[in-house]
Amino acid sequence: MLKEIEGGVCAPDGFQANGIHCGIRKNREKKDLALIVSDVRCNVACVYTTNLVKGAPILVTQKNVADGHAQAVIVNSGNANTCNADGVEIAEEMCRLVEAHTGIPATDVVVASTGVIGQPLSVAPIAGGMPELCAGLARSARNSAAAAEAIMTTDTVQKQIAFSFTAGGKVCRIGAVCKGVGMICPNMATMLMFITTDCAISSAMLQKAIASDVKKSLNMLSVDRDTSTNDTLCVMSNGRAGNAEIAAPGKDFNAFCRALHAVTVAMCRKLAADGEGATRLIECRVTGAGSVKDARLAAKSVVSSDLVKAAMFGADANWGRVLCALGYSGAVLDPDQIDVDFCSEAGRIAVCRGGRGVPFSEEKAKEVLSQKEVDICVHVGDGRYRATAWGCDLTYDYVKINGDYRT
Amino acid sequence: MLKEIEGGVCAPDGFQANGIHCGIRKNREKKDLALIVSDVRCNVACVYTTNLVKGAPILVTQKNVADGHAQAVIVNSGNANTCNADGVEIAEEMCRLVEAHTGIPATDVVVASTGVIGQPLSVAPIAGGMPELCAGLARSARNSAAAAEAIMTTDTVQKQIAFSFTAGGKVCRIGAVCKGVGMICPNMATMLMFITTDCAISSAMLQKAIASDVKKSLNMLSVDRDTSTNDTLCVMSNGRAGNAEIAAPGKDFNAFCRALHAVTVAMCRKLAADGEGATRLIECRVTGAGSVKDARLAAKSVVSSDLVKAAMFGADANWGRVLCALGYSGAVLDPDQIDVDFCSEAGRIAVCRGGRGVPFSEEKAKEVLSQKEVDICVHVGDGRYRATAWGCDLTYDYVKINGDYRT
Repeated sequence: MLKEIEGGVCAPDGFQANGIHCGIRKNREKKDLALIVSDVRCNVACVYTTNLVKGAPILVTQKNVADGHAQAVIVNSGNANTCNADGVEIAEEMCRLVEAHTGIPATDVVVASTGVIGQPLSVAPIAGGMPELCAGLARSARNSAAAAEAIMTTDTVQKQIAFSFTAGGKVCRIGAVCKGVGMICPNMATMLMFITTDCAISSAMLQKAIASDVKKSLNMLSVDRDTSTNDTLCVMSNGRAGNAEIAAPGKDFNAFCRALHAVTVAMCRKLAADGEGATRLIECRVTGAGSVKDARLAAKSVVSSDLVKAAMFGADANWGRVLCALGYSGAVLDPDQIDVDFCSEAGRIAVCRGGRGVPFSEEKAKEVLSQKEVDICVHVGDGRYRATAWGCDLTYDYVKINGDYRT
Repeated sequence: MLKEIEGGVCAPDGFQANGIHCGIRKNREKKDLALIVSDVRCNVACVYTTNLVKGAPILVTQKNVADGHAQAVIVNSGNANTCNADGVEIAEEMCRLVEAHTGIPATDVVVASTGVIGQPLSVAPIAGGMPELCAGLARSARNSAAAAEAIMTTDTVQKQIAFSFTAGGKVCRIGAVCKGVGMICPNMATMLMFITTDCAISSAMLQKAIASDVKKSLNMLSVDRDTSTNDTLCVMSNGRAGNAEIAAPGKDFNAFCRALHAVTVAMCRKLAADGEGATRLIECRVTGAGSVKDARLAAKSVVSSDLVKAAMFGADANWGRVLCALGYSGAVLDPDQIDVDFCSEAGRIAVCRGGRGVPFSEEKAKEVLSQKEVDICVHVGDGRYRATAWGCDLTYDYVKINGDYRT
């Protein structure tokens, strides 16, 4: 019933998008301004970074969505508009520009920025780009891709996805664009992810859905353990699918949550696979934990360890580092009960049983660990809780990219 | 009164040391077995890793020092003796070998191992090396250096230090050897650090002194946020200085604590400067915090951030990453009150005032940040608490060293 479809944020009925180069970035090849609009006012829910240092756009967005409604999203890349004296003013001006060019009230606009922290953001290129940006608005996969591209920073590929599902007997669609891929250790939110749906659902249930979902999706993702100042996840529902509005838990809400989770997990995997400098997606699956909290702490600790990540880069089956990361994770577990396997398309190899090493073929291990996606499967005991976390390897290129990001 | 002196762990009266190559490592150029002995039984205190996965030697050491006494330390490098089925047995055998060759009871031996996790450790090379190791025991700076060298793993330089101080009207000495330099984020202990002193002090006061000291020394150090399974800090006092035993707080205890802190801070700086792949020592000094906890959380978060560390490698004055790391540190602070300066031998440069960027010369910043030691000075408000944390930059070599450590 849940089916992947084309179209990203434009897959749901009644949403248009566009992305252009307006001049915030010097490189004319790189798009830097995105707009997503709904034909009608939407119910909206957001979660944001827990970082005390918050980007100015977050403050403006929080105010604008306080009533549970929004109709447009404007985002620039190339500058985070954070730690600037006039940050809030600039973010508000971006919303006013949306109103001036689309008629959507500035107070119904979600605004976000991503890029370097602490560099003044001039509104001039944005103002100059608005006519082109709005003229090009359309509902197409190409347009969603343009928006996805315009929010990229060090991302090497644009990230969008969409699914169809059924709620209240109607076919509904949910789509998303997002960007990573450094300063990635979301906590109650991710980088920038914008999700659209035509499924009718109240703001309150939307908030409930994403608050619950991020715990097992975006909060389980780490590229570098750095929680950004600008993380924003925003979901907008315009109800165009015609289903009876989901206003309480039940079968339809569950169908929506499953579709939402399909979106967020797919995006987590895309974000991790494209982590700065990454050559491999690392997925850690923990089973047998005594609580969901322990399972999550354990899985996230493994994908976050620089030493595990560097070993994965070298395709080195250094499972001792996995044990070490589990041991300091904060999870309650018995080291003597831990089993570890490495898995990939090339096969599965057992490296640790009951907290002790078992003999394995180094050659086979190398083959398993040399794939584009490697799973670290950890069984910690007799508990019935499990969790999955996503990360990537630590490479020379991560250091290179971040050794001189500003210039 | 506190004066740096030569001799490392052999500086205090009545301690001898040695380090040799016994064959745990294949490379004959690399020493891999160290012994430190006192002429008389010592009062002893230890702190260990908080990692739930603990090296077998820690379990044996804990048992042996439970009575507050020890007389010898045996350490091997090249193998952590962790996650091995026969780990405890091997560690106990190492203690028995010390008894057989020195007459010091096995139950008065501190044992430690460092190296790869989860690889069986054969006791044969250790047994074979004991005659040479014990025959070479002597009280000299050269002997302390040999012991320091024998406990190195990826360390590029051996680490020892000693100070003299006065307690109870007597000249006392305190010396140490330690090793890092990956999997370094001690929590209540560090990697391996062995401190000797001839100052007479009770086991209880010794424990009190180190438990308090590590909070502002070793626990404020991070190379890679990975808390090792084998961290052990051990202090032995043989009382040979002839002072009245320090058995309660007071002037003499304070003098001892000052000397101890001089040792641990000097070692933190050595460990950070020699962090795996490091080209620079990074010191973060936080002032103006509302509590010591906030100051420590803030300082440690800055030196632990991969993004800050990569920027330091690139000598890039990316202060936004410092703000970001402060924001997610867990410390209670007001982003609008944060000032940041970068300092080094080449000068001081203000980059942020009141949470906002201030104009600065990129050229001057590059010069300041290109030194071997860079201080990140953060003032967070009107509070009276401060803290210092130590770390290093994140470099290609860190990735290289850890991409294939086992082979």
